Amino acid sequence: MSRPLITLLTDFGTADSYVAEVKAALLRAAPQATLVDLTHAVPPGDLRAAAYLLGRTWHRFPEGTVHLAVVDPGVGTPRAALAFGTAGHWFVGPDNGLFTPVLRDAAVEIVTLAIPPTAAPTFHGRDLFAPAAAALASGTALQALGQPFLGIPHRLSYRDPHYEGKSLVGEVVYVDRFGTLVTNLTPEMVPDYAVIEIEGLDIGPLRRTFGDVPTGGLLAYLGSGGQVEIAVRDGSAARRLGMGVGGRIRVRLG
Amino acid sequence: MSRPLITLLTDFGTADSYVAEVKAALLRAAPQATLVDLTHAVPPGDLRAAAYLLGRTWHRFPEGTVHLAVVDPGVGTPRAALAFGTAGHWFVGPDNGLFTPVLRDAAVEIVTLAIPPTAAPTFHGRDLFAPAAAALASGTALQALGQPFLGIPHRLSYRDPHYEGKSLVGEVVYVDRFGTLVTNLTPEMVPDYAVIEIEGLDIGPLRRTFGDVPTGGLLAYLGSGGQVEIAVRDGSAARRLGMGVGGRIRVRLG
Amino acid sequence: MSRPLITLLTDFGTADSYVAEVKAALLRAAPQATLVDLTHAVPPGDLRAAAYLLGRTWHRFPEGTVHLAVVDPGVGTPRAALAFGTAGHWFVGPDNGLFTPVLRDAAVEIVTLAIPPTAAPTFHGRDLFAPAAAALASGTALQALGQPFLGIPHRLSYRDPHYEGKSLVGEVVYVDRFGTLVTNLTPEMVPDYAVIEIEGLDIGPLRRTFGDVPTGGLLAYLGSGGQVEIAVRDGSAARRLGMGVGGRIRVRLG
Repeated sequence: MSRPLITLLTDFGTADSYVAEVKAALLRAAPQATLVDLTHAVPPGDLRAAAYLLGRTWHRFPEGTVHLAVVDPGVGTPRAALAFGTAGHWFVGPDNGLFTPVLRDAAVEIVTLAIPPTAAPTFHGRDLFAPAAAALASGTALQALGQPFLGIPHRLSYRDPHYEGKSLVGEVVYVDRFGTLVTNLTPEMVPDYAVIEIEGLDIGPLRRTFGDVPTGGLLAYLGSGGQVEIAVRDGSAARRLGMGVGGRIRVRLG
Repeated sequence: MSRPLITLLTDFGTADSYVAEVKAALLRAAPQATLVDLTHAVPPGDLRAAAYLLGRTWHRFPEGTVHLAVVDPGVGTPRAALAFGTAGHWFVGPDNGLFTPVLRDAAVEIVTLAIPPTAAPTFHGRDLFAPAAAALASGTALQALGQPFLGIPHRLSYRDPHYEGKSLVGEVVYVDRFGTLVTNLTPEMVPDYAVIEIEGLDIGPLRRTFGDVPTGGLLAYLGSGGQVEIAVRDGSAARRLGMGVGGRIRVRLG
Repeated sequence: MSRPLITLLTDFGTADSYVAEVKAALLRAAPQATLVDLTHAVPPGDLRAAAYLLGRTWHRFPEGTVHLAVVDPGVGTPRAALAFGTAGHWFVGPDNGLFTPVLRDAAVEIVTLAIPPTAAPTFHGRDLFAPAAAALASGTALQALGQPFLGIPHRLSYRDPHYEGKSLVGEVVYVDRFGTLVTNLTPEMVPDYAVIEIEGLDIGPLRRTFGDVPTGGLLAYLGSGGQVEIAVRDGSAARRLGMGVGGRIRVRLG
């Protein structure tokens, strides 16, 4: 049998000992596991950024992977603690919308994790979620981890692109380290004849890749996560346009 | 046999190649080892931060773990290089106080590592400590690594909380990424009837968790590392109070 | 057989999901591999920094290690994608000079990787280079990965130290997190009688290590990567001297 995989997605940063304490709990209970950091640099409490990153990444790992996701501003409040499986992957974390891009299938079986009496009330990542993730990685059945979750899991609400006259208007949902603006537009929303406009600038049709514009040029293209992105070749679109999450992008259709 | 575990705690950062060079040395000599980063973001030379992080984390790993800790502003000076075992764990690093929270048992057997003639005088982490840690992880006996250390290992001195009239006054010893202020107070120093005061603000009794105050509220509680912490629910106490390491916290006992 | 090792060197940062997506691709195809981050904090597109870090690190890993290096500002342009082996190590990445310090042996056999039609045009790290690295780590022959590369791989050009009268003048090629200035001088260029001068300051002969100067003192010494470095004991030479990459250092020979 190959080694079980556990991914970790948190807003703990890597300057403190929190991630290592979670890994200690994981390796104590699942010593054969391979741990992979998704990221720990989610801005504190930023569920939308965390959901975006989880949503584009989880399915790239092999089936059987356990995804431990702890961006948990509600730790120490009555929010539920969840574990569930879908599409051959396992997920463990708080019920706060973090799993919105994963929880697409209404038929998913979800359990609520009982909080161990010894758990630190402010560090469920280490004392509640990590042991559950390690148990799943070690082959424990989901049903053995808790009671069936009878409610409806929390979901983040997203604004969909909308029409304004003959234009479709979307928005920026994530900005990466290169200053690339990831939008909520998908390529099928952008027909070949459409022209993309951002901050009043016409940046032409959807391109294939950076090489389609000169150095320093702005372009829109189908990004590696499946959504339309805006970038500057060898530069930062976020800096060039002064734009962040929520910024508007217009697709002129006529 | 399960794979040996080696944790790494340094102030090397992760932007340069230093951590990778240490890991190369570890995996060359202990190819079966699992490496876990405790953190590499200790501020350069900050032994107090490093000791705090090591002290709250090491015992969470399984017995047999080797802890390689290299915050070593004295590299290239005559400070000793140590390896020792305590409570079923192994430790390797410089004799500069970094191990203060671990070296509680006077009966610990310590060896001094001899510096290999080929070691870079400015990078003992790679050329001296990593090979020793890998040897311990591979089952080499401590005694085979060096001569008995006959001195008294260096220890950091800490200020204990002190009484001022009917108050106990402690101080902040660490600030984490969320702006949480970790103090040198332990929960038994804070009886139920006590009121906690910080920067002239009365923040009430010791709480259990964030949910005990409204969003934006200041609270004191028993932190996940065993010490009293001050936080702002969904915010940063460090920023709110303008407070860092050395800041005072008052426990009013009457 | 011991587990195959794959190192990762990118400018992706660790705040986004890109590194995790690359690791997912690696572990999907090479589940037994041990992954080691060289660094992901190369400044975006900084090939010189990446080449420096790769050049001082790769040979420290055991033979058979696969080095995946993706600092790839030209992704989406016609730059070639390479895989090659030298000195018992494997290398995978773009043909843009990143491998300059490795490609010393003209007889190296290089193949060009064909871009899979499903590869995201902006993320070859995940969809092109990672699968190739995983294949090499799993024992696939280099020749099976692509066609022989018939051109001359791109190389970065470096300025060598030059004479100005009775002085040899070198320059800073890298600055590390401690503010240490790594130069393009090698120790054999600095005889015992030479005096080193930087920003008009005479900092004496080449020292052995930090302990050879008082706290706060400037010194030059043979660094752990084999080049002459300038540092301040318990301080930052970069900050003290206001100097970065390209800064000049003078070795007075008479």
